[in-house]
Amino acid sequence: MTTWDSLYARRATRMRASEIRELLKLLDRPDVISFAGGIPDPALFPAREFKQAYSDILGGPEAERALQYGISEGSIRLRQWIVEHMGELGVSCNLENILITSGSQQGLDYIGKLFLSEDDTALVQWPTYLGAVQAFNAYELHFERLEPRANLEARDYLARAEEKGGAVKFAYLSPDFANPTGLSLDLEERKRILSLAGDLACAVIEDAPYQSLRYDGEPVRAMLALDCDCNGGIENSRTLYCGSFSKSLSPGLRLGWICAASEVISRLVLIKQASDLNTPVLNQEAMARVAETKFESHTARTNAIYRDRRDAMLAALEKHMPAGTSWTRPEGGMFIWVELPEELDASDLLERSVETAKVAFVPGRAFHPDGSGGNTLRLSFSCADTGKIEQGISRLGALISETVMSRQ
Amino acid sequence: MTTWDSLYARRATRMRASEIRELLKLLDRPDVISFAGGIPDPALFPAREFKQAYSDILGGPEAERALQYGISEGSIRLRQWIVEHMGELGVSCNLENILITSGSQQGLDYIGKLFLSEDDTALVQWPTYLGAVQAFNAYELHFERLEPRANLEARDYLARAEEKGGAVKFAYLSPDFANPTGLSLDLEERKRILSLAGDLACAVIEDAPYQSLRYDGEPVRAMLALDCDCNGGIENSRTLYCGSFSKSLSPGLRLGWICAASEVISRLVLIKQASDLNTPVLNQEAMARVAETKFESHTARTNAIYRDRRDAMLAALEKHMPAGTSWTRPEGGMFIWVELPEELDASDLLERSVETAKVAFVPGRAFHPDGSGGNTLRLSFSCADTGKIEQGISRLGALISETVMSRQ
Repeated sequence: MTTWDSLYARRATRMRASEIRELLKLLDRPDVISFAGGIPDPALFPAREFKQAYSDILGGPEAERALQYGISEGSIRLRQWIVEHMGELGVSCNLENILITSGSQQGLDYIGKLFLSEDDTALVQWPTYLGAVQAFNAYELHFERLEPRANLEARDYLARAEEKGGAVKFAYLSPDFANPTGLSLDLEERKRILSLAGDLACAVIEDAPYQSLRYDGEPVRAMLALDCDCNGGIENSRTLYCGSFSKSLSPGLRLGWICAASEVISRLVLIKQASDLNTPVLNQEAMARVAETKFESHTARTNAIYRDRRDAMLAALEKHMPAGTSWTRPEGGMFIWVELPEELDASDLLERSVETAKVAFVPGRAFHPDGSGGNTLRLSFSCADTGKIEQGISRLGALISETVMSRQ
Repeated sequence: MTTWDSLYARRATRMRASEIRELLKLLDRPDVISFAGGIPDPALFPAREFKQAYSDILGGPEAERALQYGISEGSIRLRQWIVEHMGELGVSCNLENILITSGSQQGLDYIGKLFLSEDDTALVQWPTYLGAVQAFNAYELHFERLEPRANLEARDYLARAEEKGGAVKFAYLSPDFANPTGLSLDLEERKRILSLAGDLACAVIEDAPYQSLRYDGEPVRAMLALDCDCNGGIENSRTLYCGSFSKSLSPGLRLGWICAASEVISRLVLIKQASDLNTPVLNQEAMARVAETKFESHTARTNAIYRDRRDAMLAALEKHMPAGTSWTRPEGGMFIWVELPEELDASDLLERSVETAKVAFVPGRAFHPDGSGGNTLRLSFSCADTGKIEQGISRLGALISETVMSRQ
């Protein structure tokens, strides 16, 4: 059987390993300070609360139901919590507006499956979340660049999509503390994109896994909330909101959700039913219990810790980075995005950084569907304490300074 | 936003709610004896063992890892157990031949995604597992009927697939105690299908969720094991084996696996990465602990109970069904398949059965991609005790007898 390649679907040619995931395997060395992984600090997980929740469920009358198949829509108790959470974000909705997904990544896959025929177009920002590109790629689409700060003309997008043999199906954005830049969209930008989507008659995908990780500044209204404001409620809204428990309580339970018009949710439920029947009821029930009692206090506690780490990293960058280097100053999330002098390549730098400075990061090219961004890199401050952050950025700054000097 | 339909992908037209799942919601009435749901008896789940496992993991040094993201391939400890389990089935393999999936349903979705381009062909038995039809439908294929007892000519299938604009990508079968018929393929039939797949140069999907639920008779060698025997090992085999913990230990953790050549597994890992990153590590670690200590003894205990229920149902059918009705005599699994006299329609019968006899089952048409099978029905004996089985089949037999008489 040496002919596997000839049996694969056409889409298989677009499936590639995440460079970042492969990179992370190499960078997992005890002597290296890593700012590479974009994951929450596992020391902050509420393990005690989860232990109690699993014990209560499996030791009580709910055990049989928790270990059985469940409904594809997701557990009522967890959806109820999400309905209230969405209400706090300005989105008035009901149980039938929520689908529980196995992490918000699964939400992106299902959205691709529901909307994208071959040669359709999705609008995305550059740089963008790599996992979204991977999820959508399975559906053989084209990407067009969305630049929220520029003048956006629907007719240009429509013409290009038609040239490519399909239609613009959605705009995909992460408006709060985006991976990889850490940047948020302001109110004006959010409204401009909703208006563009109206002109394009396409959907908007609001990917919001970092939404609750705000460390300062005022919250900006969710795009789904703005859409509901303008159009008389969620049933008339074109926005699909993808939420996640991964960055707030735990990624290990793989729990996220999509909140949207019930017509769209009912379609996504059919996709869920055909693709994995349901997300584990046991995990949903455990998450509901922990979210009900701990979401507020836990995110307040972890946000204070992440805020200190962000501040430490910003201070260290200020102190150690040479002139000609710039970076973002995010109000939340896990990432700072660095632009090096144009002549530097972050992939080359990484190799030397791991060998000599013993510091790891992710080169920024991976986040650009067009392969640009060679002089950019992503730093994550979520998993290192403030001492390690000062130490690591100091060593990285010295290496970059040396590199700049040697080229002058 | 009233234009959702125009935004959906072409494949959305093929997504329909499972008639069975919708039906089960209606049939969930305390006054009805249900032989409809094809699910394990929740009273038999090893809840105590799962409680202990979750408590050990979340109270110990593994908690942080169990609540964090994990690798897409799946937990090493659980894959190690599966490697040994596959070894007992005659398949010599390694960790890189196993992908953990969120139930074997997810395995079917990923297999569709990897192999099927629009207008490709899959060969399936009639009747067949409805969930497989739903999973594959998303990839816009054609189904051709595979009849393991007939003379199979590769050239006929090749010509028809080409006419339809694609190629035969795989044959899908459930060789052990299939849903819905309860029937197994004998050694000769398994070999015949492997040989046909060789002539077609296509893959074989061996869907084996009921494999460990054998109540009597001799085990028949797994198709993957036969393929390995003939072709010098798993790396040269064309068979993908889909296993599941859902019918043996618990469906609620949503854990299954695919076992195949490492080249295929590495492709499926990329699909997993892009679609939900990984199956929850916590659940995998808990399942590994329970499987290691309890799989043998637990399946022996539950098989004894299911055997009694099957025997009770077969005895009751013998006693209460009128002449002209026939049924299968499965050696394992959860299902008995009934053929009514040709002039009867099982959907009509169900309506009256629920109202007057207070007995529920699933009409067989749902399992036929071509809409045939109107006079067939599926009975599940997994969730009712032997007393209820005698009572329910007695009432159903009386109703069928009446119906036959009234038409004479």
